[in-house]
Amino acid sequence: MTMTASNPAAVAVSAASKRIFNFSAGPGVLPEDVLRQIQQDVWDIAGSGIGILEHSHRGKVVDKVWEEAEQDCRDVGNIPGNYKILFLTGGATSQNHMVPMNLFPKGGQWKTADYIVTGYWAQKSFDEARKLLGDAAHLVCTTEDRNHCYIPAQDQLKFSDNPAYVHYCSNNTIFGTEWPSEPAVPAGVPLVCDASSDIYSRPIDVARYGLIYAGAQKNLGPAGSTVVIIREDLLERCPKEVPTMLQYRVHAKDGSRHNTPPVFAVYATGLVFKWIKAQGGLEAIAKHNQEKAKIIYDVLDASSFFKGHADKAARSLMNITFRTPSPELDEKFVKEAKAAGLDGLKGHRSTGGMRASIYNAFPKAGCQALADFMREFERKNG
Amino acid sequence: MTMTASNPAAVAVSAASKRIFNFSAGPGVLPEDVLRQIQQDVWDIAGSGIGILEHSHRGKVVDKVWEEAEQDCRDVGNIPGNYKILFLTGGATSQNHMVPMNLFPKGGQWKTADYIVTGYWAQKSFDEARKLLGDAAHLVCTTEDRNHCYIPAQDQLKFSDNPAYVHYCSNNTIFGTEWPSEPAVPAGVPLVCDASSDIYSRPIDVARYGLIYAGAQKNLGPAGSTVVIIREDLLERCPKEVPTMLQYRVHAKDGSRHNTPPVFAVYATGLVFKWIKAQGGLEAIAKHNQEKAKIIYDVLDASSFFKGHADKAARSLMNITFRTPSPELDEKFVKEAKAAGLDGLKGHRSTGGMRASIYNAFPKAGCQALADFMREFERKNG
Repeated sequence: MTMTASNPAAVAVSAASKRIFNFSAGPGVLPEDVLRQIQQDVWDIAGSGIGILEHSHRGKVVDKVWEEAEQDCRDVGNIPGNYKILFLTGGATSQNHMVPMNLFPKGGQWKTADYIVTGYWAQKSFDEARKLLGDAAHLVCTTEDRNHCYIPAQDQLKFSDNPAYVHYCSNNTIFGTEWPSEPAVPAGVPLVCDASSDIYSRPIDVARYGLIYAGAQKNLGPAGSTVVIIREDLLERCPKEVPTMLQYRVHAKDGSRHNTPPVFAVYATGLVFKWIKAQGGLEAIAKHNQEKAKIIYDVLDASSFFKGHADKAARSLMNITFRTPSPELDEKFVKEAKAAGLDGLKGHRSTGGMRASIYNAFPKAGCQALADFMREFERKNG
Repeated sequence: MTMTASNPAAVAVSAASKRIFNFSAGPGVLPEDVLRQIQQDVWDIAGSGIGILEHSHRGKVVDKVWEEAEQDCRDVGNIPGNYKILFLTGGATSQNHMVPMNLFPKGGQWKTADYIVTGYWAQKSFDEARKLLGDAAHLVCTTEDRNHCYIPAQDQLKFSDNPAYVHYCSNNTIFGTEWPSEPAVPAGVPLVCDASSDIYSRPIDVARYGLIYAGAQKNLGPAGSTVVIIREDLLERCPKEVPTMLQYRVHAKDGSRHNTPPVFAVYATGLVFKWIKAQGGLEAIAKHNQEKAKIIYDVLDASSFFKGHADKAARSLMNITFRTPSPELDEKFVKEAKAAGLDGLKGHRSTGGMRASIYNAFPKAGCQALADFMREFERKNG
C-alpha cells in the first residue's frame, strides 16, 4: 500500500472506480450513500475544519453525532423509553462475558442462566457462560443433531426453573437459519438476544426483550462498535465488584462515553440508521429483504442441482447457505463467481458449500446477478 | 446531518475545504496524507472493488492490512522478536482491568502490584487495581501534592517487595508532564506503561518493558483500537479462568483476530505507522516534536503573562499546559483562539487554563500560529 499524494483530485478519480457485489458474511457491505458521506466527513465534518476521526469525543460535533445516533437508533427500532442504548466495543463476543457478569450476580436469587444453542455463535455464548458460571449455565436446547439446519419448536425448549435470563441468537450466520419470531420464555424472565446478523433487518418488538446486542458490522455499520439495547431495571443487577468498563451501568450513566469511545464506528453506525430511515424504516427494509432473498431461494427451490442447508421453515433472509452436488463443484462455483464480480460466497467450514450474505445494504441487483449466475452454472455443470 | 447525494464530484469539492489547527488532546489530529488515503480506500481498497469498511476480517485484503500494520509497528518501534503486538479494543481504560487480570494471578507467587501515580489517568489505573486487588495494589508514589506538575525522582519511588509488575504512565495528558525516561524498577520486575499520549513520539527501548499499551487516538490513529506490546513470557501468566476475550494470550494466539476486530481502526493505525516511517522514523519524529514544542515553550519562558503548569524538567512535548493571570482571560484566550482557527485549547478542569496538544501529526505551522497568537494576546491583554 503506497500513500496517495495529497491531491484532492485523486479522490474524485478513485471514487468512480468500479465496486463489485460483496456477499461477505461480515463485515458486510455498507450503503454507498454512507460511504460518500464518510469520504467527505473524514476530511472535514459539518464545516468544523476537522475530520470526524480527529474530533474530541467531548466536543460539540461528537455530541451531535452521539445524540443523533442514539435518537435515530431509537426511532428506527421504536425502542421504548425504559431502554438504554449503549455503544460499546469488543464485538458481540465480549457480550459472552458481559451478559453473565452483569445479569447473573453471584449470591443473587438466581441459580441458573438459560442458553438456546442454534449455531456456532450461540454455542460460543454458551461455552463462555459454562466457563464463567459452571453448571449454572443451563442448556435449553441444541440443534446440533442436524448440524443446526433448523430452529427448535417452542415445545423443544426446556427452560430451567427461574433462570436469571434466557439467551438466544436470532440469526445463525454460518448455517443460514433465522428465528421467525422470538421464543416464548417464562413470565418475568429477561430474554437476551445476540442479534448481530439480523438486527434492524425487520421490525422488532423491543419490549419483548431484556437485552439485545449486536456487533455492528453486518447490518448497522463497520466493525468496531457493539450496540447494546438494555431495559433500565437490568442495569442495577450488576455487582459493583465487576471491573468498571465491563458494567453496563457505567456506560449507561456516561452515555457510552465513560472513556474515549470508538467515535468513527459510532458515527458510521449513525449514518446507517439515517439511511434505514431514508429507506422507509424497518417495514420497508423487511419487504426489500424478503424480495431479495426470494430471488435466490426461488433458484434453490426450482433446482435439483443446488441444495439449501437450512430447512425451509428456518430460512434466513440474511444468509443463504447452499451447495452443489460436490465439493469440487462448490469450489468451481466460488471461483467462477468471484471472476464474475460476485465476491465472498465461500461457505463457512462448518457447513461447506456457499453462503450468500445479503444484509440490508446489499443491493437487489446483486441478488439478481447471483440468481442468474446460479442458473447458468447449473446449465453448464448440471 | 443530511446525507450527501451519491455524486463523486461532491467529494472533490469538499475535500478542498479549509481545515483548521486542531489542538485536541485526543482524539487528535491525523496526517493529511493518511486522511486522503482513507477517503480513497473507504470506497475501494487496493482495487478490490470493496471498501476497507466492508471487507471480511478473514480475507486477503485484511490479511495484508494486518501483516503490514504489525510489521510497520514493529519496524517503527524497533520491537524485539520476543514481543507480541496486539490490536485490542476498549481503549487504554480497559487495560486497567486487563493488566491485573493477566499479570497478577490469584494464588500466584506475587503479593503486590505497584503503581506510580503522576496524574489523572495513572490514578484511574491505580483505582481500578485497588478495586480488583484491594490492598495488594501498592502505591509507589504520587505527585498529587503539587497537582501533578512534576515527575518523581528515582529516590522517591518506594517499590514493594517483589511486585508482580510496576505500572506507570509515561505522559500525563492533563497536566502536561512527561517522564524524560523510564523509571528504574527492581531487577526482573516487568515495567508496564500506559503510553497512550506519547507512544512513538520519540525512540523507545521496548526491551526495558514487560508491557506497553496505548489508546491509538493520540499518536497512532483514530479512536477504536488499543495497541498492546507484550513480552511473550508474560502471556502465560494469565489464569485460564479469565474471560476469553480478556486474555492477552488468546489475542496473541489468534493474531488480534479472535473475533471480528475493529478493522478500520487498525487499518488507519497501520497508515500512521507508514507515515511515521516516511517521516524518517522515531528519531526524526522526536526532533520535529522537540522543535514544535520549543516554539511554544519559548513563548512561555519569555513571558511574565503566561505561566506553565508543569515544572520545566517535567515538560511534555505532547501536551503544553499554561494559563494567563486569570480564569477570565483564559476564557477569552480560548474563545479568541478558536475564532482565529486554533481549536481545542481549553484545558482540562483539573488544571484549568489552556492545553495545546501537539501530537506527531500536528503541524509545526500550527505551533508557530499559536506562538504568534500568544504574543499578540499578551500584548493586548498583558
